[in-house]
Amino acid sequence: MSAFREAIRSGRLAPGTRLPASRVLAGDLGVGRSTVVRVYSELVNEGWLTALHGSGTEVSRRSVGVVGKRARTPVARPRFVHDLRPGWPDLSSFPREEWVRAVKRTVTNAPFEAFGYVDPHGRSELREVVAGYLARARGLHAHADNVVICSGAAEGLRLVAAVLVKVGVTKVAIEEFCLHTQRPALLKAGIEPVLLPVDGDGADLSALDEIPDLGAVLLTPSHQFPLGVALQSDRRAAVVDWARRRGTLVIEDDYDGEFRYDRSPVGALQGLDHDRVVYLGTASKSLAPGLRLGWLVVPDRLVGSIVAEKGWAEESVGFVSQLAMTDFVDSGAYDRHIRAMRTQYRRRREQLLEAISRHCPTTRVTGMAAGLHVVLEQPGRSEAELVQRAAREQLAIEPLELFRNPGCTSERQGVVVGFAAPSASGWSGALDALVRTLR
Amino acid sequence: MSAFREAIRSGRLAPGTRLPASRVLAGDLGVGRSTVVRVYSELVNEGWLTALHGSGTEVSRRSVGVVGKRARTPVARPRFVHDLRPGWPDLSSFPREEWVRAVKRTVTNAPFEAFGYVDPHGRSELREVVAGYLARARGLHAHADNVVICSGAAEGLRLVAAVLVKVGVTKVAIEEFCLHTQRPALLKAGIEPVLLPVDGDGADLSALDEIPDLGAVLLTPSHQFPLGVALQSDRRAAVVDWARRRGTLVIEDDYDGEFRYDRSPVGALQGLDHDRVVYLGTASKSLAPGLRLGWLVVPDRLVGSIVAEKGWAEESVGFVSQLAMTDFVDSGAYDRHIRAMRTQYRRRREQLLEAISRHCPTTRVTGMAAGLHVVLEQPGRSEAELVQRAAREQLAIEPLELFRNPGCTSERQGVVVGFAAPSASGWSGALDALVRTLR
Repeated sequence: MSAFREAIRSGRLAPGTRLPASRVLAGDLGVGRSTVVRVYSELVNEGWLTALHGSGTEVSRRSVGVVGKRARTPVARPRFVHDLRPGWPDLSSFPREEWVRAVKRTVTNAPFEAFGYVDPHGRSELREVVAGYLARARGLHAHADNVVICSGAAEGLRLVAAVLVKVGVTKVAIEEFCLHTQRPALLKAGIEPVLLPVDGDGADLSALDEIPDLGAVLLTPSHQFPLGVALQSDRRAAVVDWARRRGTLVIEDDYDGEFRYDRSPVGALQGLDHDRVVYLGTASKSLAPGLRLGWLVVPDRLVGSIVAEKGWAEESVGFVSQLAMTDFVDSGAYDRHIRAMRTQYRRRREQLLEAISRHCPTTRVTGMAAGLHVVLEQPGRSEAELVQRAAREQLAIEPLELFRNPGCTSERQGVVVGFAAPSASGWSGALDALVRTLR
Repeated sequence: MSAFREAIRSGRLAPGTRLPASRVLAGDLGVGRSTVVRVYSELVNEGWLTALHGSGTEVSRRSVGVVGKRARTPVARPRFVHDLRPGWPDLSSFPREEWVRAVKRTVTNAPFEAFGYVDPHGRSELREVVAGYLARARGLHAHADNVVICSGAAEGLRLVAAVLVKVGVTKVAIEEFCLHTQRPALLKAGIEPVLLPVDGDGADLSALDEIPDLGAVLLTPSHQFPLGVALQSDRRAAVVDWARRRGTLVIEDDYDGEFRYDRSPVGALQGLDHDRVVYLGTASKSLAPGLRLGWLVVPDRLVGSIVAEKGWAEESVGFVSQLAMTDFVDSGAYDRHIRAMRTQYRRRREQLLEAISRHCPTTRVTGMAAGLHVVLEQPGRSEAELVQRAAREQLAIEPLELFRNPGCTSERQGVVVGFAAPSASGWSGALDALVRTLR
């Protein structure tokens, strides 16, 4: 039957083609006539074939010029062989079998109601395991009621920005170098971004009190993106104090907080004051961006408005992913996966540092032993030159410029190199290409 | 190990509790010491336990007051026993096994890139099978490039409204009774909704040319929601002509177009002019709302702006659902499921008509032999009275009032009764409750 569908789809069986009588085809194929009758009738029902008045069957004319074509858009193929882009986890390590098992267990056992419209807050089972995970792994003061399930940190920030605008916020401070999605998210909501310098201790917060009408500050405290520094502890305390004093909010984007290699991860800022910090988390780095799964942890007073903002267009994460993730965390598979990846990424980071110190001793590596990327600088070579040299090696790395906000006065030059993106088998080739680029 | 986690989570093992030495516990449990050491060390890594300086292990103090609590929000329990709400398919008939098989096949075989960030356009495999399906089942002129995958018709309408606003549209005509999500979607985008009366031939389009600055019209042509009539063929042609003449758009919400019981489904309006009609489709009625899976089919010139509008916040449907749906359609399972449901819903609709004509002969049933609902009217009983009587039977039905737009001048009274929502085992009880309500 699928051979028939394929023949029609590919145009080998043209619309209007009269098919052999079921008796004739059955004889040709050596199958029972009833089989052919059943197949014809299914294909008629599906619209591939049309039963003619009188007798006979033909390929539907309705399909003309429509189903025969393949998509014109070519699949976007990367123009590089080696992928050291920051922000990408190792997709080849996705725990396929465990995920499929989690889907099977949960879809088989789900109550009927799970298949209905999805609560924009997120399923309570998932909110509960996420709260538990964040409490023990990231030090959050997180209750299931304060968790809102979303499709990733970008949606999370969109929701927070929309709610801030509704309470009259017009300005939010961001880091002078930051994730390239943050500034557009604020602008689109109608919020003016104000830049904070970033130094070796993270975002410089000394000017916060001098910015009039500042409603919130958006930070990556555990691992500044892209510069890779941690927000120093006095500054952590200071920004929370500022938010309390001014009745404002800190938005914490904890995009890769699980990955720290030289010590236990620093707990999330949210743990210092769950009433003044909105936390954005995601499974994009810890599992895979393709799942489109993330979470917000918000103060009690904001839960209702965040859920209302989200719920309105019913753009919730499907129940299958939510249930599978619940099972995945609850069974311990999520913790195991993160531990395994932490070991793998730590090893890669060490190999990268070693290769650079051996072969490219003039290269300066910055960023702490954490996350999925480092920043590299070479005296006498601009970042544009480094990216061009990488391109000749068919290697993808990204210039700091990509994450520099308009108005940023830092003269810092460098390239951001992710060590997580390659598959296990692609890693050593990518590292060699990087060494050739830097030599 | 999960017993430990549960004991900590439930508070039976309080934070700070010192655990027995691994050797002692191993003896007590009659397992090897290495097993206990491994379990302790995994739980330390996960953050449940803390290894003490010197020796010994205790329950983490970090978990205090956080992971011990269950969610405060009670699970929303319906206050009815019998569910005849419109718009809900039979969730108990969801093809769980086939869906799990589709997930397994596709996750196991997916290329690495599938686990990465999701193209806001939607995966090309899925766009292709959706285009093929819509062409043969709904008569669309649909190419994979024109399909945009989204999380349902509500998101689809939000995207279309946002794009219309960008090209200067300020007014869109809607039906005087309509899906209760449509009007807020337009208002939120900054579009003024203008009402069209609905009669036995669908939306009355005679005034279209007299509405100044009308940029589009939003219709449910195959099966008006909630009144259940089809847009008459002259009107179908007229509205497409109007859109061509005025350079405007028709937005077609085809929420349950697959379900027609007395004849083949009328093809979608989009088939008349794929350049002037934007089509909204969804798996919410044909499979389950919980999947959060839908599709738009848009004219060439709008594809770019719809994808840009969608892509910005990365709120795409996860790749697992997209691949599973691709497999589900491609294997013929989707067609089979829809055929099976069509048979079941047809039978239910007949049983409903028969029960009403036998037991409640004064009740008037309207709406054609299609979709998942009928409209019932009773002379001498207001719709509010009917809903109250239903509540006494613990039966959920919805008054027409719920779908009446402000400014609607129709004096039509009635209740909207869905016959798809109950499970197979709940159907006859629900029907009995309806008969008692109407008697």
